[in-house]
Amino acid sequence: MTLVVQKFGGTSVADLDRLRAVARRVQRTMAEGNQVAIVVSAMAGTTDQLINWVRQIGGPDCDRAEYDTVVASGEQVTAGLLALALQAVGIPARSILGWQAPVCTDATHGRARIRSFGTEQLRACLDRGQVVVVPGFQGIAPDGRVTTLGRGGSDLSAVALAAALGAHRCDVFTDVEGVYTTDPRIVAKARKLDRITYEEMLEMASLGAKVLETRSVALAMQQQVRLQVLSSFTDQPGTLVVDESEIVEQQIVSGIAYSRDEAKITLVGVDDRPGIAATIFGPLAEAGINVDMIVQSVSSDGKTTDLTFTVRRGDMAAAVATLETVRTELGCRRIDADGEVVKISVIGVGMRSHAGIAHTMFRTLAERNINIEAISTSEIKISILIDEAYTELALRALHTAYGLDGA
Amino acid sequence: MTLVVQKFGGTSVADLDRLRAVARRVQRTMAEGNQVAIVVSAMAGTTDQLINWVRQIGGPDCDRAEYDTVVASGEQVTAGLLALALQAVGIPARSILGWQAPVCTDATHGRARIRSFGTEQLRACLDRGQVVVVPGFQGIAPDGRVTTLGRGGSDLSAVALAAALGAHRCDVFTDVEGVYTTDPRIVAKARKLDRITYEEMLEMASLGAKVLETRSVALAMQQQVRLQVLSSFTDQPGTLVVDESEIVEQQIVSGIAYSRDEAKITLVGVDDRPGIAATIFGPLAEAGINVDMIVQSVSSDGKTTDLTFTVRRGDMAAAVATLETVRTELGCRRIDADGEVVKISVIGVGMRSHAGIAHTMFRTLAERNINIEAISTSEIKISILIDEAYTELALRALHTAYGLDGA
Repeated sequence: MTLVVQKFGGTSVADLDRLRAVARRVQRTMAEGNQVAIVVSAMAGTTDQLINWVRQIGGPDCDRAEYDTVVASGEQVTAGLLALALQAVGIPARSILGWQAPVCTDATHGRARIRSFGTEQLRACLDRGQVVVVPGFQGIAPDGRVTTLGRGGSDLSAVALAAALGAHRCDVFTDVEGVYTTDPRIVAKARKLDRITYEEMLEMASLGAKVLETRSVALAMQQQVRLQVLSSFTDQPGTLVVDESEIVEQQIVSGIAYSRDEAKITLVGVDDRPGIAATIFGPLAEAGINVDMIVQSVSSDGKTTDLTFTVRRGDMAAAVATLETVRTELGCRRIDADGEVVKISVIGVGMRSHAGIAHTMFRTLAERNINIEAISTSEIKISILIDEAYTELALRALHTAYGLDGA
Repeated sequence: MTLVVQKFGGTSVADLDRLRAVARRVQRTMAEGNQVAIVVSAMAGTTDQLINWVRQIGGPDCDRAEYDTVVASGEQVTAGLLALALQAVGIPARSILGWQAPVCTDATHGRARIRSFGTEQLRACLDRGQVVVVPGFQGIAPDGRVTTLGRGGSDLSAVALAAALGAHRCDVFTDVEGVYTTDPRIVAKARKLDRITYEEMLEMASLGAKVLETRSVALAMQQQVRLQVLSSFTDQPGTLVVDESEIVEQQIVSGIAYSRDEAKITLVGVDDRPGIAATIFGPLAEAGINVDMIVQSVSSDGKTTDLTFTVRRGDMAAAVATLETVRTELGCRRIDADGEVVKISVIGVGMRSHAGIAHTMFRTLAERNINIEAISTSEIKISILIDEAYTELALRALHTAYGLDGA
């Protein structure tokens, strides 16, 4: 008998009817001959409500340990209710809370890291034929207090549980049907992918595809947990996130992601001398501002150069203010900032063995008169920065150019 | 420094503003030179909402362990939020959950009994100058699952905590200002009592005065915990529930309670022979029906007698049905049932040493032409059964007759 971990998020457990639907879904997975361990989020809206109360009463810098104590209760409620819903359709089931398993974490309240996932009790229940229901997002710190794992924490719990139990697969139920070649709200011809590699999913997730959080994908990759992203509202197979070796016919490009959370900053006429990068990026790092793409133009006179880089849009003003403090030192003539840019990334593990991917990109955009403002590449990804106004046009053109269009 | 346990119930922690008011209340208690340990209920309405969900999804006979897992979350939320509210006014505070203390109970989910209240962690926090906030109502079973203590469970938690810590006093904050001589909604001249003995409070509680649950009073009496019942909406002292030795000038009658949850059943013409009581009350006990007052009239012919007793009003139909099955065996001519009766009880430890209490009662009622349908007495209480229509009249007359009327 194979063991499957199934994770149901907020909209999948939004109300009692949805919980009953989840119970029937689990019933079908069992009928296919699987043992099932379940991870649940809080019911939709609950976590926001609890966080709102915490913020109102404790302020933004409140005690994170109490924050965790309050907020973790949402998942506890869902776990108990789903165990009851399962029992109501005749499935032996019980909840096992974070501190009961125990899900041991470090003491970083509000964004704790899982250190170990206790499975003794879970296995005992599974061996007795019970379905176990574990509240996601929560754990227990070394001092015995409740912790939470931060954004996307329930996915992380599910992957960690699947790894700890050596599960055959970890199904993550969401409100979308899987991972798409690109955002179907923008590109009507976007297709659901049957399979995608961890590396590609990681790039997709970190570039704005909201299906899975980066941490969960990274953990799945590290622990070789086969993930399936699928919808709890349909009965269709979703997208499998697996090791490259499991994908026989690899596409060169698997998907195109985009991120609007970008701003471009250009330092005009900076002294072109060694150590200048440290003078620029040191203060930004100290201010907690992450820098992404960096482009240094070739110096025309051998004395000064222009330097362009991107930051998150919300950090733009702070970045400019920080740089103003070192502007004289840099010999910088002017600081330009542009918050109306978008980063578009073409992703595919097939790129490693194929040339011409970049050329296709540049040609496609040039044909539409779209100017590329910055480029950065990795082994399996090419990202470009363009004017935000061209987002849709660029996405659709690239989707067609890389042969991703569906029927 | 004296230690005070303060318990805040549902209406006292109804919303964030009320929680902030509780924090200020605790601040005043500390300013008086006390250490404070707090027990909280769920925010008003929360427990009902959770129970409603559980019932809807699991039905009335659902798994009580899951019921407890879901329902206990309400107190957890309040505990965390109140800790934050206390911190917000500058009081070092932290929550300690039932399983963290730990509050060890038996495994009777939904109505567990506290076996021990772990205080090591609590004391360590108190010694560091922290206020501890403990969610009431919840504990942990021997197998490590969450339990709840049933109705009035948070009061019970507070008394148990006060006993475990050897607290000077346990303040129970409610929406009333204390314990009254009788129901002030009926008798305008009812007075708030400054002090009352455990025994009297126990009778008041079991006879329908809703201020404290019987189990909490019994535990306080057994553990000699000084209880104070007071309002969280005013800043007035409430009623102290203490040992008889702490009350210098004892009133003969302290209070008058009443209960409408009564029904009278009369078996007319029952064989007057040994063993007849077992034939009547055995089947009722088996059916889980509690019998309260029992009156057997003197047999006029030496062969048959009439037997009257009371049950809870909701049990009346079941009691009659049960008795019908043994009616022939009893030789009983007729079974009369009357759901329109009220039990009125005059309570006071002073009765032990004073005669004439019953006489005052009978005379007062006779003067108003109120017929007494049954009488039962204990060392500190006289209860009578009368027609429900006379409830208000009887209460007011007795309140005056026993000298309880306020200014």
